[in-house]
Amino acid sequence: MRSAVRACTIDRVARHLAVVAIALLAGLIEASAQTPSTPMASVDAGILEDVVIGSRILADFGVLDGFGHVSARHPSNPNRFLMARSLAPALVTADDIMEFDLDANAVDAKGRTIFLERFIHSEIYKARPDVMAVVHTHSPGVIPFGDTKVLLRAMFHNPAFLAAGVPVWDIRKDFGETNMLVSNSAIGKSLAETLGDKPVVLMRGHGDVTVAPSVKMAVFRAYYTDVNAKLQAQAIALGGEVTYLTPGEGEKADKTNFAVLDRIWNLWKMRIQPQLAK
Amino acid sequence: MRSAVRACTIDRVARHLAVVAIALLAGLIEASAQTPSTPMASVDAGILEDVVIGSRILADFGVLDGFGHVSARHPSNPNRFLMARSLAPALVTADDIMEFDLDANAVDAKGRTIFLERFIHSEIYKARPDVMAVVHTHSPGVIPFGDTKVLLRAMFHNPAFLAAGVPVWDIRKDFGETNMLVSNSAIGKSLAETLGDKPVVLMRGHGDVTVAPSVKMAVFRAYYTDVNAKLQAQAIALGGEVTYLTPGEGEKADKTNFAVLDRIWNLWKMRIQPQLAK
Amino acid sequence: MRSAVRACTIDRVARHLAVVAIALLAGLIEASAQTPSTPMASVDAGILEDVVIGSRILADFGVLDGFGHVSARHPSNPNRFLMARSLAPALVTADDIMEFDLDANAVDAKGRTIFLERFIHSEIYKARPDVMAVVHTHSPGVIPFGDTKVLLRAMFHNPAFLAAGVPVWDIRKDFGETNMLVSNSAIGKSLAETLGDKPVVLMRGHGDVTVAPSVKMAVFRAYYTDVNAKLQAQAIALGGEVTYLTPGEGEKADKTNFAVLDRIWNLWKMRIQPQLAK
Amino acid sequence: MRSAVRACTIDRVARHLAVVAIALLAGLIEASAQTPSTPMASVDAGILEDVVIGSRILADFGVLDGFGHVSARHPSNPNRFLMARSLAPALVTADDIMEFDLDANAVDAKGRTIFLERFIHSEIYKARPDVMAVVHTHSPGVIPFGDTKVLLRAMFHNPAFLAAGVPVWDIRKDFGETNMLVSNSAIGKSLAETLGDKPVVLMRGHGDVTVAPSVKMAVFRAYYTDVNAKLQAQAIALGGEVTYLTPGEGEKADKTNFAVLDRIWNLWKMRIQPQLAK
Repeated sequence: MRSAVRACTIDRVARHLAVVAIALLAGLIEASAQTPSTPMASVDAGILEDVVIGSRILADFGVLDGFGHVSARHPSNPNRFLMARSLAPALVTADDIMEFDLDANAVDAKGRTIFLERFIHSEIYKARPDVMAVVHTHSPGVIPFGDTKVLLRAMFHNPAFLAAGVPVWDIRKDFGETNMLVSNSAIGKSLAETLGDKPVVLMRGHGDVTVAPSVKMAVFRAYYTDVNAKLQAQAIALGGEVTYLTPGEGEKADKTNFAVLDRIWNLWKMRIQPQLAK
Repeated sequence: MRSAVRACTIDRVARHLAVVAIALLAGLIEASAQTPSTPMASVDAGILEDVVIGSRILADFGVLDGFGHVSARHPSNPNRFLMARSLAPALVTADDIMEFDLDANAVDAKGRTIFLERFIHSEIYKARPDVMAVVHTHSPGVIPFGDTKVLLRAMFHNPAFLAAGVPVWDIRKDFGETNMLVSNSAIGKSLAETLGDKPVVLMRGHGDVTVAPSVKMAVFRAYYTDVNAKLQAQAIALGGEVTYLTPGEGEKADKTNFAVLDRIWNLWKMRIQPQLAK
Repeated sequence: MRSAVRACTIDRVARHLAVVAIALLAGLIEASAQTPSTPMASVDAGILEDVVIGSRILADFGVLDGFGHVSARHPSNPNRFLMARSLAPALVTADDIMEFDLDANAVDAKGRTIFLERFIHSEIYKARPDVMAVVHTHSPGVIPFGDTKVLLRAMFHNPAFLAAGVPVWDIRKDFGETNMLVSNSAIGKSLAETLGDKPVVLMRGHGDVTVAPSVKMAVFRAYYTDVNAKLQAQAIALGGEVTYLTPGEGEKADKTNFAVLDRIWNLWKMRIQPQLAK
Repeated sequence: MRSAVRACTIDRVARHLAVVAIALLAGLIEASAQTPSTPMASVDAGILEDVVIGSRILADFGVLDGFGHVSARHPSNPNRFLMARSLAPALVTADDIMEFDLDANAVDAKGRTIFLERFIHSEIYKARPDVMAVVHTHSPGVIPFGDTKVLLRAMFHNPAFLAAGVPVWDIRKDFGETNMLVSNSAIGKSLAETLGDKPVVLMRGHGDVTVAPSVKMAVFRAYYTDVNAKLQAQAIALGGEVTYLTPGEGEKADKTNFAVLDRIWNLWKMRIQPQLAK
């Protein structure tokens, strides 16, 4: 049962990757051409719903407060991504979602205010064809880890993806004293480079970014990164040696997380739906 | 008053044990025989309700999130146990509860998805005739204790059952690098052996399991194990010596917990009932 | 304005004390006489409401869970006190409140189940004529302090009453290995002796008791004892020296707490009233 | 986009400052003259709403409990400020807001009870013409920092204003053993002097005060001071060196907070509005 589900998930991921790689290549070739605006009606409603549910559930858990954002790569055009207009994540609806190109330009802004930090998303989509979704948070669990030399490591199997290693990016290293924000492509690119091929990067004095092959999984990772950070801090405070998941355990356990993802996602969706029915 | 209640509880437990022991013996004799499916209609509605209330109250307290499960041994057939189909605990209803044999096979799956980790339950019911209910959680309080060498010990009288000692099971010891899950009988058996005759076992990099002579008490233990872990972490952080309940105090106090269990259970039931009325 | 309010409060307390002292003396003289049952109708509804609001708000804050209790000395008969039948504090209504004598006998039980630990209350009312209300909790903040040698001390002006010193009572000292409960008069008397003339006593492996000249203030103290304990633990974890309120500051600040008590009580009452309207 | 918003905010602040400076000077010249009562009808409803939303959202987050207060300088008369009558912050409505002069006298009390600690506000408005709003809290995050020598420092960009340095005021230094309250002008003046030109001051054994050029920003600062304190405590507990925002980073990041303030304020307003509709 489970392995069927997992195989199916992996297949779907693989198909996504192929589509992305080809489209991205195509995109690079006609980089200077002005692509016409893809109307949002062309986007599957499911992906817009995932962005809405993800934004709101992370706000509900306190992983996001008034700031932070969830984005998805455009399902049929890998040179585009979908992200809300500048708005608190707890208030996002499908109608607030806009389309951006990989230079973080709004395809059709219609006078809407956009997020200053959209370069986090654009530069990661550029650098990582496997990434279909990006979440940026000021998650209270992770901020202490971003400001110290203590590495974030996997405490249990749900945050198993942390066992691959969690880099910390310090904006001051390349850009000196700034307002701490990822406010242009160069800063976004530097962040994407520190992320490398990992699922999570911490940002000193700021928060974190999680990436995944789907919105659901990027949200799952943002949630469990926060949970793990708090538990690791508690384990360290107990005063003895802490046993973390090995990279091998992490890789195996992360695969099973793909298989059980819908179980927790359906719960989250049910929690959020009453808000949307209002 | 209280001692009458307690005596009554102990009597009821003793009767359960006798029934279980005889039935289990009978079960072992005809182990290879194909027992016909016991229709769920034959199960007392009270025990299904206990599983539902227990699943949902633990989710309400954050002891369970989208994962974990509550099971009960079948009240009239000790070779069977009752457990929800694969579903977030906050969403479980009586209709989701299925019947399993002690090899963790669904008696009549009717196409429903089942929990991968049902072997936690089957192997403990096999090894422990006194156990009538099993709860598995990723309780945030206990995970730090599962990953360190600091023993979980009883801070006050409600978690008195911890004074008997809390073993820690590490899947890596016998099975090497895995996905951390109790995904077959051999792993379940290893876990049950580490549990031994205790009420609680911690699982490194994973969570815990609590067992008891009733669903109510297994849920009570899952809740107070989490509460105790958090309080013990705080006591350790104060920096001095901590005085825990002695095994003698633990044994005596645990008996009184059986006498007052309905007081807190009735409160929990009232909290959950509005959800079920929807 | 404020000093008028304060003077008025102190006057009221002084009047209470005089009434209590005289009545207690009278009570001692006719100790063996069988006092006829005082019907609850004779008790001012305000005091029953205070017990109900206090029980429920402490449950709402998590200072109480399914256990613990709030009592009031009978306003016209100081040899009696008022306390709910055995029930989770979040569920208490005025109709659940019963009358007890100072030997912890129910005046007219009418078959209702009573709290095993009513001796906490009876023995303190016996020993402390100034006490008009008693609250017993398993407050999560205080349990770590009850199990260590770190003294609970006043972090700020609302819990100023802690600056008088907070004794810790260990049942094991006089009674050996028990079930940890205050289940008879002798144990209650030992606890009352350790409390002495203080407003709070911690109970090792159990919780705490707060006392005051009114239900409102006993509840206020139970709440702020828990708040203070959590803040003190955090201050200690910062790693340097902690400056606490001096006894002189504590005494002065505690007086102003009487003057502002209604401000927070009215808030609490408004929070609880929707529950009672159901 | 963003820099336009920011420039606009800074312009507005500058205009405020000019108005305040001139009016304050005028106020000092005719200090002894009896200014006639400004009817509240003359005050823009928006500023009253900000005080209401700010009081209630801070109560909602637990930054305020039953105590603490939010005030605004009168928008057209800088020698006056607006503050609720003595009331729990969670209950404040526009009708509860009163007008005070800079000696903390109510302009027209109409028999209403007023806050004892209004001198916190009056003396800061006197000393700091740039300050248009003051918030006083017993914020649980900051109390441990007020009682120790560990300096509160900026962990991330939202609480960037802390990078300017956070002084700690101890009432005992100038006034000996008191009831800890800012109950007259002399004590208020001492507090204002320790605040100096900073946005936040901690009060030993008491809480904190945040100030800003608008109610929204003073509330934002009260909220993020509490958040930062909790995160800093966690970072310190991890045991290594902590990297804080530099003063330069703090100054730059604080400017961007003015640009994004409405995003979180609109969220808070939406959370509170259902309470006000009742």
